[in-house]
Amino acid sequence: MNLFSPSTPLEAFADDGPTAAVLPPAAQEQLDELFQGLIEQSPLSIGYPCSQEFDYRPLYRFLGLAVNNVGDPFSGSNYRMNTHAIEREVLADFARFTGFREDEISGASRAYWGYVTNGGTEGNMYGLYLARELFPEGIVYFSEDTHYSVAKILRLQHSRNIMIRSQPNGEMDYDDLEESLRIRRDTPPILFVNAGTTMTGAIDRVDRILEITGRLCLPHHYLHVDAALSGMILPFVDDAPPWNFADGIDSLSISGHKMLGSPLPCGVALARKSHVDRVARSVEYIGALDTTISGSRNAITPLLLWYALRTHDGAALRARVARCLDCAQYAVDSLREIGIDAWRHQHSITVVFPRPPQAIMEKWILAPYEDICHLITVPNVDRATIDAFVSDLKIAISSGS
Amino acid sequence: MNLFSPSTPLEAFADDGPTAAVLPPAAQEQLDELFQGLIEQSPLSIGYPCSQEFDYRPLYRFLGLAVNNVGDPFSGSNYRMNTHAIEREVLADFARFTGFREDEISGASRAYWGYVTNGGTEGNMYGLYLARELFPEGIVYFSEDTHYSVAKILRLQHSRNIMIRSQPNGEMDYDDLEESLRIRRDTPPILFVNAGTTMTGAIDRVDRILEITGRLCLPHHYLHVDAALSGMILPFVDDAPPWNFADGIDSLSISGHKMLGSPLPCGVALARKSHVDRVARSVEYIGALDTTISGSRNAITPLLLWYALRTHDGAALRARVARCLDCAQYAVDSLREIGIDAWRHQHSITVVFPRPPQAIMEKWILAPYEDICHLITVPNVDRATIDAFVSDLKIAISSGS
Repeated sequence: MNLFSPSTPLEAFADDGPTAAVLPPAAQEQLDELFQGLIEQSPLSIGYPCSQEFDYRPLYRFLGLAVNNVGDPFSGSNYRMNTHAIEREVLADFARFTGFREDEISGASRAYWGYVTNGGTEGNMYGLYLARELFPEGIVYFSEDTHYSVAKILRLQHSRNIMIRSQPNGEMDYDDLEESLRIRRDTPPILFVNAGTTMTGAIDRVDRILEITGRLCLPHHYLHVDAALSGMILPFVDDAPPWNFADGIDSLSISGHKMLGSPLPCGVALARKSHVDRVARSVEYIGALDTTISGSRNAITPLLLWYALRTHDGAALRARVARCLDCAQYAVDSLREIGIDAWRHQHSITVVFPRPPQAIMEKWILAPYEDICHLITVPNVDRATIDAFVSDLKIAISSGS
Repeated sequence: MNLFSPSTPLEAFADDGPTAAVLPPAAQEQLDELFQGLIEQSPLSIGYPCSQEFDYRPLYRFLGLAVNNVGDPFSGSNYRMNTHAIEREVLADFARFTGFREDEISGASRAYWGYVTNGGTEGNMYGLYLARELFPEGIVYFSEDTHYSVAKILRLQHSRNIMIRSQPNGEMDYDDLEESLRIRRDTPPILFVNAGTTMTGAIDRVDRILEITGRLCLPHHYLHVDAALSGMILPFVDDAPPWNFADGIDSLSISGHKMLGSPLPCGVALARKSHVDRVARSVEYIGALDTTISGSRNAITPLLLWYALRTHDGAALRARVARCLDCAQYAVDSLREIGIDAWRHQHSITVVFPRPPQAIMEKWILAPYEDICHLITVPNVDRATIDAFVSDLKIAISSGS
């Protein structure tokens, strides 16, 4: 008996608990069809950075409770139906992954603050909000390869901003950045850094950006890093470029539903605690310093991330990243073998190639942008998946469809 | 066998599917203790508007999939692992609840746009963002009883704003509003309206506000309604005051985890489609008009709301609201019987009373603000709960603790 198949009788879920309400037959049929469709789509989804390799069934019992992580995870809350303690453990792990020293992780010398977000947008919004609070007149600089949601956030926040050219490989054009900064040396720059970009996995180099702010005598600057996908890759490779707090950044956002995998979009926002303390405000209603963007906050997603981290130690995460990188290289090689001009950045599981024929776009779930496309070898994408995709692509090209 | 108790063996969840990874013993113990603690706290939680009366077990199978509702629910998405069709049904139901006519619900004449949010903050942020896009120079007016998160949003959005006095009952002071508007008639007002307020459930009257904008010849105005809790009460009572789209508002936010109940914070943002069309931007990457605030969006919460609505028709929702209102009046009467000065607004399940002794605050999960406190008779709070609370309070007061 598979408890989570569409044919599972409702009775299987209910014995000594209350019986869940029964859907009208038409609605039940609609639900079953939706589930079946999703199950069928699932193996064809290779274009988005969402791992499907997870199994959180031991946590489902928590979904019977009205849990809520409202407020600051470090301050306690009047609403005791929360998972703040678990959330703090998750944040400590991410602080370790992103360059905080062991003596900065806990206790009175804790040097970071953060929370589990609803995804990358909220984490980037938090970083840019914090930056604007610190430098109200600051100008945000971001490359043209930056995720489209950042322009949306900047519009929402009414922040002054300048888009910087990208190099052909997707990395920020540092000369254009330096020129843009040079003529505005009276204004603190807020530098939005990609590690890596959505389409090509390019990493904007923190060291090169800080060289520029150093040359231009801009000590008052702020670096926010969008490490949505690569934030769970770079901690587990040997020769990562500078990208994190140890290298001088001020805040970052990492997605939880990407490399780690989760049915619920989530992520982690982290920032230097010294910055956050300057923005925090006391709010008695929730008995907490209200420094998060969302008020009511998901208490299940911290559990999912915690479970993923407690069942995968550092060695397991490192092995998984190595496997994904190996599969990405396999995809590059396989595509080149059939004459497709595929490529990827070092340390990136994003494989870039020319936009394929429409028949392929309709069968496989891919993410095109103008004339390019990518596939992403998240943990559930294996060599067999790549083989099937390359085989389809070869047929589509040879048939001219 | 209860599949969702802490003692359920892991094997019960896994048979023909992959076996979930096993937690290290210390982590498993920590998880079990957390669960046990939450189960024990659950019946004592009467101060927050989160119903605990739900059972979504028939949907748990969807949690094995990397679903994501990225993008506009009405535009389709390249990421086909979504529940957009379900989300649109939920939005249609909420459009009906909030004053759209049947001929405005679907097809080419659909008059609303919206999406399922991560909770009230995102819905209010969306409404205020839309208002600012329509009236870039507009000033936001909101009462001092407005939820603290609104001041946070306004700061984040850098919107000009003015706080209006409240009446002692928590309702906006319309004289103060009129005075404030009178001296700024050159600027379009963005009116943030509570239905009802967080602490007392007071409803700011849409009709009185529109009378004022009429008197002052302010045709260019915008009304956003925060109906976090009452948005699922007012559609199901007979003589609700004006509060919704039929009465002339422009957008609103309703929480899903409050009256309907959900283990994941969520809500619905709704706005007049004509407004949204002016703000929308095409984004090819997700193959969707990117008009939502979050990028990656939860695909499970629309399922939860849909399930709640498909297992509770209009008559059931009406009966449940009547039962909650009845219980709120029972709480007022019971508290008054022991000499506590309790009160509530008509149509409100929020029962207000003086802040109780510390012993009570420590045992029960309550939400105090300055010298007042409230309990909220969401669907799982019954007369037996009220009796237990009133009994504890009587003892605490007589013992002077």
